Amino acid sequence: MTTVLHLDCSANRSAESVTRQLSRQFADRWRTGDYRYRDLAADPVPPIDTAYCQLGRRSEQLGTVPIADVDQLVQTRAEAEAWALTKPLIDEIRAASVLLIGTPLYNYSLPASLKAWIDRITFPGAFADDVLRDTQVVVIAATGGAYGPGAPRDGWDHQEPYLHAYFTNFGVRPENLTYIRAELTLTGLVDRLAHLKPLAEHSLAKARAQVLSGVALRQNAAAER
Amino acid sequence: MTTVLHLDCSANRSAESVTRQLSRQFADRWRTGDYRYRDLAADPVPPIDTAYCQLGRRSEQLGTVPIADVDQLVQTRAEAEAWALTKPLIDEIRAASVLLIGTPLYNYSLPASLKAWIDRITFPGAFADDVLRDTQVVVIAATGGAYGPGAPRDGWDHQEPYLHAYFTNFGVRPENLTYIRAELTLTGLVDRLAHLKPLAEHSLAKARAQVLSGVALRQNAAAER
Repeated sequence: MTTVLHLDCSANRSAESVTRQLSRQFADRWRTGDYRYRDLAADPVPPIDTAYCQLGRRSEQLGTVPIADVDQLVQTRAEAEAWALTKPLIDEIRAASVLLIGTPLYNYSLPASLKAWIDRITFPGAFADDVLRDTQVVVIAATGGAYGPGAPRDGWDHQEPYLHAYFTNFGVRPENLTYIRAELTLTGLVDRLAHLKPLAEHSLAKARAQVLSGVALRQNAAAER
Repeated sequence: MTTVLHLDCSANRSAESVTRQLSRQFADRWRTGDYRYRDLAADPVPPIDTAYCQLGRRSEQLGTVPIADVDQLVQTRAEAEAWALTKPLIDEIRAASVLLIGTPLYNYSLPASLKAWIDRITFPGAFADDVLRDTQVVVIAATGGAYGPGAPRDGWDHQEPYLHAYFTNFGVRPENLTYIRAELTLTGLVDRLAHLKPLAEHSLAKARAQVLSGVALRQNAAAER
């Protein structure tokens, strides 16, 4: 059975958000079975703190304690609170067979809201047992400019390479990581980019087609047959 | 006159934090004139929101309005609140001649707390007038492992290339950007890394020497003569 964990990260919660539109379309089209939604802008993951770090250090000092046993390491009320905020988020990603992330590019990298989620779930040992081996990760991104080969900003997207490194490091297989991107979303807004509107429309149409074809999930279904 | 803006980002506010120790040493040794300190963990920058995005879009639509005039674009109470949170932070970085950042590497990139500051200060037009042309940026980083040439994790530090891209894009001259790094800080904690302790001590000693030599600030002083 499929368990989808759907995250939205755009700070813009209005209808203007392209990543929210596309990730919603993806979820509506492909969700079956369990579905969890988390709006990281509306309901931000609290920043990690000293207690979180000290609990993590204690686990590492002991050779990285399994996640299920970390509660036995807790020594203070602050650590108990930190763990109470952390454990459910780790359980949620561990239980997901599909992780769907709608994320704009902010200042050439991921939004702080997404990094706050990453910083909290990446507690020592969270993925140590190769639990993400069969997890499909679908990243639906939008960028104000263009960052592909040949564009003046080629190489300036620091989000995609980072997310690739992060997820594959923690056990997601590269072939299970799908990146869908709508580029040049600012062309409708900024006069000096108006001549690029056709490219933007093409990019959005392509992203929408990828969303509707559900590439990653079809691969997954094929593998199960 | 020198105006130092000192940011700390480590979520660990105890004496264990290497970046807090080193950035403190740098500030104690080199601060003259104005000094502003901001603890991004103790006092997090609030996440940007829909109102922030809509105010930014309005400014871009008008060809990017100068920062001093953005208050005239405000249309709602939420936008007024967003701008009240944003403008002082922009003023602060614009006024700084030295930006000192103590930042650990979290999960191969910058802490969410630092990205939250970046996402807020990078309002359209914030640095449009080349105001960072003479700003010295000193980044003092610490990493649990090793990420230099030849290390197994060579290429996995996504923080330094990102900060370089970000700051130079907004007008900081590459020669005014200094990166000081203490590596392998986990060796004292994790048994399996214990054999690397001498390398960690060497790295910390080197970082401390760079802090005390104040490379960036001396260059600045030389340029003023």
